[in-house]
Amino acid sequence: MLNQVRIVMVNTTHSGNIGAAARAMKNMGLSRLYLVDPIAKIDEEAVQRSSRADDILESVVICETLEEAIADCGLVVGTSARSRSIPWPLMSPRQCADRSAQAAAAGNEVAVVFGRESRGLTNEELHLCHAHVHIPTDENFSSLNVAQAIQVLCYELRMAMVVEPEGEASTSEEGRWGVDWDYPMATHEQLNGMLQHMEKTLVEIGFLDPNTPKQLMSRMRRLFQRAAPDRMEINILRGMLVAIERTASRANAEKGEED
Amino acid sequence: MLNQVRIVMVNTTHSGNIGAAARAMKNMGLSRLYLVDPIAKIDEEAVQRSSRADDILESVVICETLEEAIADCGLVVGTSARSRSIPWPLMSPRQCADRSAQAAAAGNEVAVVFGRESRGLTNEELHLCHAHVHIPTDENFSSLNVAQAIQVLCYELRMAMVVEPEGEASTSEEGRWGVDWDYPMATHEQLNGMLQHMEKTLVEIGFLDPNTPKQLMSRMRRLFQRAAPDRMEINILRGMLVAIERTASRANAEKGEED
Repeated sequence: MLNQVRIVMVNTTHSGNIGAAARAMKNMGLSRLYLVDPIAKIDEEAVQRSSRADDILESVVICETLEEAIADCGLVVGTSARSRSIPWPLMSPRQCADRSAQAAAAGNEVAVVFGRESRGLTNEELHLCHAHVHIPTDENFSSLNVAQAIQVLCYELRMAMVVEPEGEASTSEEGRWGVDWDYPMATHEQLNGMLQHMEKTLVEIGFLDPNTPKQLMSRMRRLFQRAAPDRMEINILRGMLVAIERTASRANAEKGEED
Repeated sequence: MLNQVRIVMVNTTHSGNIGAAARAMKNMGLSRLYLVDPIAKIDEEAVQRSSRADDILESVVICETLEEAIADCGLVVGTSARSRSIPWPLMSPRQCADRSAQAAAAGNEVAVVFGRESRGLTNEELHLCHAHVHIPTDENFSSLNVAQAIQVLCYELRMAMVVEPEGEASTSEEGRWGVDWDYPMATHEQLNGMLQHMEKTLVEIGFLDPNTPKQLMSRMRRLFQRAAPDRMEINILRGMLVAIERTASRANAEKGEED
């Protein structure tokens, strides 16, 4: 199952951290490293710090955007100190590993996303995640190196998927909801497509003012990501949106005549 | 927290089971028993089987419908063998207790619902629940008496809420999503009101044919119950539905002129 989990590092500044991350991953049996718009290069220092995990560095996937790196994932978890403007579901590393094991057992790709050395992930990036994970640290000394954070999460992923897969949460071959499900989970791309469609439709019916959108779409994104919709549910929602758009274009034709 | 949990028995046939249920509850520190349309009366046998839990029998709440019994609850869990037509989130008794502890810690009322002695809960009743709980039994001898089932669930509730409240899942005073939330969870009644509004709106825009509804609303109910919306989210969804209805009435005015 570990091969269904990718580690995503966003805007990493220090090549040594990329190398140390690869080593931490390999120690725990993970191998898929994605770099989003990296500032550091995979240079000699990276190779040196990776110890003998240079195979992971050689097969790194480089993406321009976070969206690209997580497009096919059924579960996306972002590391965060604490949720900011709007609260978002928050897990411990162990809960994150259990939920990742469930998602992977159900056939999903999983991404665990780590932010910049200086300031972590932006709110916008955190909102692309189903849930956030917070590594408990001493409150007087809470700054954790990104490779150390990756080490902790990879350890818990190994515990949940390899060492103790008998745990109730992690063994369930019945997936995310503890029961055989009838349709696969929607990927990030499918869920995102539905939300973009929703946003467009809400503008068309005059519910969402694109000039003062406030937190409306963030709240809807959070709601639907919490539910982790399956593909049939996304299809139904897309169908509804098409029906609403048709109604709106009939109504607007009417309005056009009045003008 | 145990006083935020109610045990709901639907259509109970044998008064002895009501008494035994009261005793099982009192043993574990629970006190709130709801009976939905009971066939059995609280008679001498019930009092006798309750041992000295007659205070619970005296304060029983009798409801005509399940909806009435769960209207103000933020979490509703139904006991079930296995989900039928559409799969529904399924928990073990321990997971049910942990999730109930989280919900109660966040200030919610919780209901655990038990079905008829003969055939459990109907699919319609099960669909009113956020999740189902299945008590693992030997597959060759799987029929569990309703009061025994109540005993097992009340035991796990006590473990999660009183004996071992240090467990990660159950202590969280930060509630359902592991983080301080900004709005309280919607009650069953509020969520249900939104779903009924949605159904009406989908008929108005021609997306839902009331003569062949299929599983559409069951799937939407399951989706939104999984997400466990807060009150702000419900308000936004209601606002959207109002905007869609306004659009539909403008479009239908147009159609009226065409006719």
